[in-house]
Amino acid sequence: MEVIRSNFKDNLNKVYEAIEESDFLAIDGEFSGISDGPSVSALTNGFDTPEERYQKLKKHSMDFLLFQFGLCTFKYDDAEEKYIMKSFNFYIFPKPFNRNSPDVKFVCQSSSIDFLANQGFDFNKVFRNGIPYLNQEEERQLREQYDEKRSQANGAGSLSYLSPSSAKCPVTIPDDQKKFIEKVVEQIEDLLKNEESESLELEPCTGSVSEITYLLKNVFILKERYIVISKVDEEERKRREQQKQAKEQEELNDAVGFSRVVHAIANSGKLVIGHNMLLDVMHTIHQFYCPLPDDLSEFKEVTSCYSFSKLIPFIINNTSLAELEKRLKEVPFSPPKVESAEGFPSYDTASEQLHEAGYDAYITGLCFISMANFLGSFLSPRKNHVSARSKLVEPFFNKLFLMRVMDIPYLNLEGPDLQPKRDHVLHVSFPKEWKTSDLYQLFSAFGNIQVSWIDDTSAFVSLSQPEQVQIAVNTSRYAESYRIQTYAEYVEKKHEEKQAKRKCTEDSWKEMERKRLKTHFTGTSTVGKRSMSPIEEETGSDDMEEGEGQDPENDQTDSCVESLSDGKKRAKKLKKVKTEQAPAGKCSAYAHGFLFCLKVPSSWN
Amino acid sequence: MEVIRSNFKDNLNKVYEAIEESDFLAIDGEFSGISDGPSVSALTNGFDTPEERYQKLKKHSMDFLLFQFGLCTFKYDDAEEKYIMKSFNFYIFPKPFNRNSPDVKFVCQSSSIDFLANQGFDFNKVFRNGIPYLNQEEERQLREQYDEKRSQANGAGSLSYLSPSSAKCPVTIPDDQKKFIEKVVEQIEDLLKNEESESLELEPCTGSVSEITYLLKNVFILKERYIVISKVDEEERKRREQQKQAKEQEELNDAVGFSRVVHAIANSGKLVIGHNMLLDVMHTIHQFYCPLPDDLSEFKEVTSCYSFSKLIPFIINNTSLAELEKRLKEVPFSPPKVESAEGFPSYDTASEQLHEAGYDAYITGLCFISMANFLGSFLSPRKNHVSARSKLVEPFFNKLFLMRVMDIPYLNLEGPDLQPKRDHVLHVSFPKEWKTSDLYQLFSAFGNIQVSWIDDTSAFVSLSQPEQVQIAVNTSRYAESYRIQTYAEYVEKKHEEKQAKRKCTEDSWKEMERKRLKTHFTGTSTVGKRSMSPIEEETGSDDMEEGEGQDPENDQTDSCVESLSDGKKRAKKLKKVKTEQAPAGKCSAYAHGFLFCLKVPSSWN
Repeated sequence: MEVIRSNFKDNLNKVYEAIEESDFLAIDGEFSGISDGPSVSALTNGFDTPEERYQKLKKHSMDFLLFQFGLCTFKYDDAEEKYIMKSFNFYIFPKPFNRNSPDVKFVCQSSSIDFLANQGFDFNKVFRNGIPYLNQEEERQLREQYDEKRSQANGAGSLSYLSPSSAKCPVTIPDDQKKFIEKVVEQIEDLLKNEESESLELEPCTGSVSEITYLLKNVFILKERYIVISKVDEEERKRREQQKQAKEQEELNDAVGFSRVVHAIANSGKLVIGHNMLLDVMHTIHQFYCPLPDDLSEFKEVTSCYSFSKLIPFIINNTSLAELEKRLKEVPFSPPKVESAEGFPSYDTASEQLHEAGYDAYITGLCFISMANFLGSFLSPRKNHVSARSKLVEPFFNKLFLMRVMDIPYLNLEGPDLQPKRDHVLHVSFPKEWKTSDLYQLFSAFGNIQVSWIDDTSAFVSLSQPEQVQIAVNTSRYAESYRIQTYAEYVEKKHEEKQAKRKCTEDSWKEMERKRLKTHFTGTSTVGKRSMSPIEEETGSDDMEEGEGQDPENDQTDSCVESLSDGKKRAKKLKKVKTEQAPAGKCSAYAHGFLFCLKVPSSWN
Repeated sequence: MEVIRSNFKDNLNKVYEAIEESDFLAIDGEFSGISDGPSVSALTNGFDTPEERYQKLKKHSMDFLLFQFGLCTFKYDDAEEKYIMKSFNFYIFPKPFNRNSPDVKFVCQSSSIDFLANQGFDFNKVFRNGIPYLNQEEERQLREQYDEKRSQANGAGSLSYLSPSSAKCPVTIPDDQKKFIEKVVEQIEDLLKNEESESLELEPCTGSVSEITYLLKNVFILKERYIVISKVDEEERKRREQQKQAKEQEELNDAVGFSRVVHAIANSGKLVIGHNMLLDVMHTIHQFYCPLPDDLSEFKEVTSCYSFSKLIPFIINNTSLAELEKRLKEVPFSPPKVESAEGFPSYDTASEQLHEAGYDAYITGLCFISMANFLGSFLSPRKNHVSARSKLVEPFFNKLFLMRVMDIPYLNLEGPDLQPKRDHVLHVSFPKEWKTSDLYQLFSAFGNIQVSWIDDTSAFVSLSQPEQVQIAVNTSRYAESYRIQTYAEYVEKKHEEKQAKRKCTEDSWKEMERKRLKTHFTGTSTVGKRSMSPIEEETGSDDMEEGEGQDPENDQTDSCVESLSDGKKRAKKLKKVKTEQAPAGKCSAYAHGFLFCLKVPSSWN
């Protein structure tokens, strides 16, 4: 169902009902762009830490507009053994609702716009008939504006005409307005005397109305384009006041607009499914709740505050959604049984309508059903239907796929993130003329390598054997055009540079110190609330620290190491954490889970 | 005529022809926004200097997209005594033409988009079928890319597979590609041996083609999605090479796209008319030529370099274009006689189609004809038709209307700008709660005032009598919530702050000094070329300096004072400049010219 500004209010209850009755929801967003900074390959480097990825997306992707929001609700019909789905495709646009409303500026990226244009995306529908929205701060401000106006009206204008410098004296009427005001006063006096006339319509006036309100005690004023003055008794006055308040409330609701749907999703506590969902979640919070917080741990707090974290699991996949959907129809998966609810149009998966957000949300939901049911095949007896509430699905909750990160499959909204060993990774800097082939050439002696570009003049290169890392560094000692260092050295240097920057001036340094302490404090309070890893506490604001004294033998076969220490003392703590927070076993289980979503082994074909 | 991507090439010659044969051109642009910074009222303060206005527009208005460009050409038919017009409405969009092309990001302002949406603007046409463009630097880079590719192809791939670190040794073929390469080599050897087969189509390969080109000496390769290897003799090879070059040239032309129309306008030397044209000119240069220069004087240079300044006059008006057009049909003006050329659709001015750029350009042209003809009514004998080439129109050349500036009617592209006395102006700062009415209240003793908001907490207030300025300053000496200073004090303080900023660190200071010297040098060289005012030289980088020792009697009745001095010595020089550059008489003539365009006296009704 297509929802635009003109039919939004009429269908809002239908949306609420669909969310309320559903077993799970699937969402998808279309944006006016992806990255206003580095190229997408630099934006999604294979060795980003979750914090780095968060920072990059926050910095380079939040100025775009989420202008189409797809919501598909799925409700299981036990008798018929099939899902009933309702799909909504919302067009979103921050249309200013009056002169004081926020005049949002958003960025468009030509390549994204061109891509959507080729898919037949209807920009006219967005810009002419998109549903407006407000974030929470804007909503609060608007509510205040209404409250203020109301209290002014109730106080019979006692505030509006007072200037700060002349607290209690009456307003001076400018010479050129005197005649007009005198005439109005005369008219009003006539109105009050004359028992037959009920109201008086004033001529349009350009000046402030405060001079006029000042003259009135027991008459009621409607401020529109024309001023109408009516005589009213107390009861009529109250009735009108209530009418006005109801109208204001409706105006407020209209302005909050699409945010009401997002609030309903968040408050429903339902499972929300998404495909490559990190950007969608960040954008949804940024656009409809509040500006994104400065760092990842605060972001995790926010997702929990807005009861988002309780409901976001993940579907992960680094191939396209279309391919995933196709794949999940084949053995060993089975095509899900889904039908549109009555009165809702059905999508035809045979004729692709991809990149309409509503359709993408629908496909995402289908994929989830196939994958969840697949989990049931490992049970004995085999279970054909696995509900969204099943324990089998729970391990996948609150984990957002990190697209193109090689060794950290997901961002964990519920606690600390995985910290892989990167002892097989080198950081290489080189002249900007170099291409990937030059790096292959340079490392040709080391067998297979993987290259992850950082920018024009640097890249991470991962070797297949960690023992060769030091050899590579040593052989490059005297090279002039390029420079090789270990990942650990790179991280340390970056950290030092950060420190040096802080030392720039004494003043700013002191302020930074104060901030650091504050961060630490916040961090501590966090533990209690969300049981973060103590390691994260220990290292404070250093979100990545790799040890010199680290034992390369330790956990060599396990790719999911929880944290890295720089000394034996820490290593000990680390072990404790691992048992408590993410034991190797559980970690592997995750990895297995990811594998099944990430890539279907070719042997299954 | 509507011109979009799909019919652009077919109609380009028609556009060129229309420009070439015309007597004058009118242009208009539609943008995705106006200001990404302060409110429009702060963006266009009544006491902006031309430099300040330029800086504000450059900073806050250049990230928007000019996405519709209207061009209307007018040719006078002497026999029929009427104009023949051809109107073009171009849709513009920076569609990326390949993976290496610039991926332009542009800002949209909700209020502007909403405004255009309400006018029925077709965003789908822009985004799906807009004509691409390149600025001069992008065009140069693309040309270089083609040249490089060509020289690589001519050198039979001798460059493409060499990495900087292994200058002359052959490329190492990765293990996993060896089989594929060996097979290709075999196939090529077969092709060369076999006299019957002429070409060979390779299987799609993901690896670099450089390894393959390395193996080939006398075969010709077409690099497309599939690699086709053909045997060719020298003649065939040349023919293909030429074919390829022609194709490349066409691709290049397609990419330069709409910029070709702008070049044709600039190179035609024709008179170009615009309405409130400063933003259009700045945007046109920024989008289709080069990023705007740092300061106004350089901007003036650029407009002259691109032969723009020779052709931009102005139509000024602070009311809307629609009202202007209506007004210019009435006495003492006469409605211009204009007809569409054959094959060109005509616009109906009765049914408003405003804010389609092509229509707005048409209306702008009509206004110009009415106004130019009106100038003929002052001649004796009276002249009914005044051509765009007439001496009567010349005084209005190269002057861009400064919207909402109170005392500087235009920005002069040909030389130094007018520098009005502002001895009746006060700078007031106050708490952010203050409204305009508070300022009226504060200055109620001083008669009529004019308020020009700068930001939330400051404004310029102009008094009707300059003598009252000092009284106002004195009476406010002990005020706590607000602060009043003269305009001269304000400018001086601002200048001091700039200097203080420069002193921030010694290093940056030294660099600034170097820059200052450089500026001065550029300034000097400018005089020779463009005969700038010596005063501008004297004051160096201080684009606004108001004197303490200034004689208030001097030029009191003349609102267009060329420059302001801070001492008798300068005042003397100043007088000399005035005589040379902009004598009071000429200045008044301008003022008169403006009055007639700016506001039609009501006595004419």
